[in-house]
Amino acid sequence: MTRYHRIAAQDLGRLGALSDGIFAVAMTLLVLDLHVPAGEAWHERSLWSAGAVSDEQPVWHALTHVGPQFLICLLGFLTLGMFWIGQQTQLNLMDRADRSLTWIHLMFLFGICLVPFATALLAAFPQSRLALLVYWADLLYLGLVQLAALRYARRAGLLAEHTGPEDLTAIRRRIGIVQLLYAAAVVLCPISTYLSIGLIIALQVNSAVSPPIHPFDRF
Amino acid sequence: MTRYHRIAAQDLGRLGALSDGIFAVAMTLLVLDLHVPAGEAWHERSLWSAGAVSDEQPVWHALTHVGPQFLICLLGFLTLGMFWIGQQTQLNLMDRADRSLTWIHLMFLFGICLVPFATALLAAFPQSRLALLVYWADLLYLGLVQLAALRYARRAGLLAEHTGPEDLTAIRRRIGIVQLLYAAAVVLCPISTYLSIGLIIALQVNSAVSPPIHPFDRF
Amino acid sequence: MTRYHRIAAQDLGRLGALSDGIFAVAMTLLVLDLHVPAGEAWHERSLWSAGAVSDEQPVWHALTHVGPQFLICLLGFLTLGMFWIGQQTQLNLMDRADRSLTWIHLMFLFGICLVPFATALLAAFPQSRLALLVYWADLLYLGLVQLAALRYARRAGLLAEHTGPEDLTAIRRRIGIVQLLYAAAVVLCPISTYLSIGLIIALQVNSAVSPPIHPFDRF
Amino acid sequence: MTRYHRIAAQDLGRLGALSDGIFAVAMTLLVLDLHVPAGEAWHERSLWSAGAVSDEQPVWHALTHVGPQFLICLLGFLTLGMFWIGQQTQLNLMDRADRSLTWIHLMFLFGICLVPFATALLAAFPQSRLALLVYWADLLYLGLVQLAALRYARRAGLLAEHTGPEDLTAIRRRIGIVQLLYAAAVVLCPISTYLSIGLIIALQVNSAVSPPIHPFDRF
Repeated sequence: MTRYHRIAAQDLGRLGALSDGIFAVAMTLLVLDLHVPAGEAWHERSLWSAGAVSDEQPVWHALTHVGPQFLICLLGFLTLGMFWIGQQTQLNLMDRADRSLTWIHLMFLFGICLVPFATALLAAFPQSRLALLVYWADLLYLGLVQLAALRYARRAGLLAEHTGPEDLTAIRRRIGIVQLLYAAAVVLCPISTYLSIGLIIALQVNSAVSPPIHPFDRF
Repeated sequence: MTRYHRIAAQDLGRLGALSDGIFAVAMTLLVLDLHVPAGEAWHERSLWSAGAVSDEQPVWHALTHVGPQFLICLLGFLTLGMFWIGQQTQLNLMDRADRSLTWIHLMFLFGICLVPFATALLAAFPQSRLALLVYWADLLYLGLVQLAALRYARRAGLLAEHTGPEDLTAIRRRIGIVQLLYAAAVVLCPISTYLSIGLIIALQVNSAVSPPIHPFDRF
Repeated sequence: MTRYHRIAAQDLGRLGALSDGIFAVAMTLLVLDLHVPAGEAWHERSLWSAGAVSDEQPVWHALTHVGPQFLICLLGFLTLGMFWIGQQTQLNLMDRADRSLTWIHLMFLFGICLVPFATALLAAFPQSRLALLVYWADLLYLGLVQLAALRYARRAGLLAEHTGPEDLTAIRRRIGIVQLLYAAAVVLCPISTYLSIGLIIALQVNSAVSPPIHPFDRF
Repeated sequence: MTRYHRIAAQDLGRLGALSDGIFAVAMTLLVLDLHVPAGEAWHERSLWSAGAVSDEQPVWHALTHVGPQFLICLLGFLTLGMFWIGQQTQLNLMDRADRSLTWIHLMFLFGICLVPFATALLAAFPQSRLALLVYWADLLYLGLVQLAALRYARRAGLLAEHTGPEDLTAIRRRIGIVQLLYAAAVVLCPISTYLSIGLIIALQVNSAVSPPIHPFDRF
């Protein structure tokens, strides 16, 4: 290892700040994809035509057009939120970074940047098993990179003193359970891709709400 | 509660940084929506045609085209600014986060990402009561999530030592007054949606300027 | 003043972070406006047509097309850089914020978000005095808001202990000189708007380079 | 030097935060360029037409369309990641900034904002030596500005106490080796631009992976 490699990329705070920036841009752009359909705005129609004032139909039309996109936005937002919490929790277990951990984390962030694309593909082709596999491949990739980062941090001695082995076990178990449930949902796609998608959404909503009812509070 | 849930998402600073990122992107993109109308730039016309040098008409045209959008930008910016101050004030009362507070705050940020869409819808259909209701629903949702975050933080013991009950009362009263005034403005929409919109804008400008005159300094 | 107003928006660090986010988005989007002209990429032409391998003409065409935009990007980037340094220096003189200072700073950031629009307008109509006035109005607005923020911070007792009156004088003089030079450049627009634009660009390059030669090291 | 120049832009943390924001936006937008090709989504075709459920062809088509863009995204992401690590390492050697260092760093960030454009140009014209030269010019520019920043920081006494001369040597050697390898790759372009591009990609992947095998662990 060269001296450059020893002094490079030590700053955990900067890595967290870069992550926050990437998550913030991805989350905001996901939702900014919602657009008022063009060509229906009031100034395109006569203001004084009969009934114009009380005519709510174009607004209903715009809202029903946006409806499905809205659900997809929410799904993408929940997915990004879950992984944001995951990576924040991981970085908090460490007290410094090094160049390899930084590159592993950058590869994680690359997977995060792909979430909007994978979500949009699934939204465009909800009946396609291939689109579902692409979406799932991204989730699986993110899980594997998280495990790799944890493993590397332990071996390279980057963990903070307050981090005990039971913390590592808790995170590994957590990632394992979530990934198993994703895989189980995807395995059901020969029955119906809608069933798989519905299960993934349910899993992510459960993860956000985390209701205090056994066994739903476990993942 | 699993051990993962106990160690996850403790970092209040990271939550603030993510919020700052999302607000920054939303605010900037709101204003970047302003565009010089295409097809009017000078290089599309002959440079040497008679009067070209002193011909200011296309510029006036571009500016009058952009005018109403500019007002909407400003309205959206003020709304985002008000909620940014609100959430910053809230987070400053706490000294740590947990997983549930983080999810509540993420749901708040989701509502923030919707502000540009709701504003654009209202701008496209200023005479529509439905568009006004959608806009107001977002404001109401944001207020309710703020109250939920405050309530949760108190119950879960996340508040800092320097936070007294009078601080909580002040914030709750503040949110309550603003939301009541929004609702009052919306109730007037059967008279005219323009009246409602005007009142909401006046309320937000007042909130920014906060003139030292009773009772305008109260909200 | 209500209790809410006393506890709201105290955090100078968060204000800085929001500013950094807004500047970062504005700067990046400014440059991302550069596009490779569509319809000229190699895959649109036959790969195996005679001379395709050594045909550099479409690349030259793309680069010359992008050339003027590149200069405008650079101008916008320098302007944003100058104001970023200005507001960072200001915030460093204070040791806390309050709600009014935060709103003044938010209004400053609104002006920052308008810089790309004003720059694009000037680029589309370089011969128009009106476009030049719009651009200058934004610069003037930013300068005035900076002075207002400084004045407010002094009166409200937000300045840090290490801040002496000579620091305030230095900043005020600096803003005054730059604004005077801007105004002088704009006053020359009846001769030629190109002259005014050239002088503004020269002023901003000088501000970035700050050559160690009197009097160019003064602004 | 005026008093303004002495007090301006001292804050290294703010400079880091601005950099993180710019890198985050550039990285995310690079990947968000991936789009599901329009006009192929399922709702454009009849849901109940024969075989619609199992028809994966439009998804394959969308993915093969996106494939080359995906590789370019990854290349751009690796480039940005490498320079992000480089500038973070540099800033960590210093313990304060001044106005000149800030401007040098802003010029570095301007070059960073150009990376997506240069990458897209190369992707559109992979057989063009001119496009390759533009791409390489940006990489060279970034390396030279990094060296200039280091040199300035040393002369202006901005380095932290923990920074020894061997750290500076390590960084300088690192930048020198990488730039030499870039130049060597570009020199081979008369043979084939694809060879040059392949070597640059290989160099960047090696830089990310940094395999523990001599001599590949040196750069």
